[in-house]
Amino acid sequence: MRSRSEHRSPERACFLLQVKADRITDYLASHDDVWPEMLDALRAAGWRNYSLFMRPEDGLVVGYFETDDFEAATAAMAGTAVNDKWQSAMAEYFDNADRPDRAMHRLTEYFHLH
Amino acid sequence: MRSRSEHRSPERACFLLQVKADRITDYLASHDDVWPEMLDALRAAGWRNYSLFMRPEDGLVVGYFETDDFEAATAAMAGTAVNDKWQSAMAEYFDNADRPDRAMHRLTEYFHLH
Repeated sequence: MRSRSEHRSPERACFLLQVKADRITDYLASHDDVWPEMLDALRAAGWRNYSLFMRPEDGLVVGYFETDDFEAATAAMAGTAVNDKWQSAMAEYFDNADRPDRAMHRLTEYFHLH
Repeated sequence: MRSRSEHRSPERACFLLQVKADRITDYLASHDDVWPEMLDALRAAGWRNYSLFMRPEDGLVVGYFETDDFEAATAAMAGTAVNDKWQSAMAEYFDNADRPDRAMHRLTEYFHLH
């Protein structure tokens, strides 16, 4: 796989999560009004152009965001109190995660067109 | 699910593909040097900030791109000779697709942070 410098700045991060199939509707509703404090924390941690996508058939979630440094951005979020509260509120929608953010499965970028 | 206008311009499109698990290495290698004519066709069709990500454990592919009009962008690519050739070259890596692009499974965006 390539690791050309053009792939590095900013980093484009893609990750997967798995929502319980019988909780998809409630999980989506919880995202109609994400707490402003959570949005502020994400911005402050360097998460930009952050989207979440759902496969409604089975609850597969794809997350995509851009950041200057993935490790720093995720570490910065992990250190905030509002993220602790948000992840606790989301935990009921996930099977295998007391903390859904710790179950993030990052994928490898192998192609990019500007 | 929301359809707020902020989600619409540009559209952020996310789709899934499934590569044969035993062909992942060859499939990835084919993307080290995507034909310049293919890149030109994508640009001309309005595909921007286009990334492909791989889950190497099983060959799940996530595609992400931005465009002013998803239907127009995919229709424009479907009409090009270079895309016909590219899809034919990729077909061997996919199980259920004579034309992998026609098996694109688009996901629904339910959250966005600028």
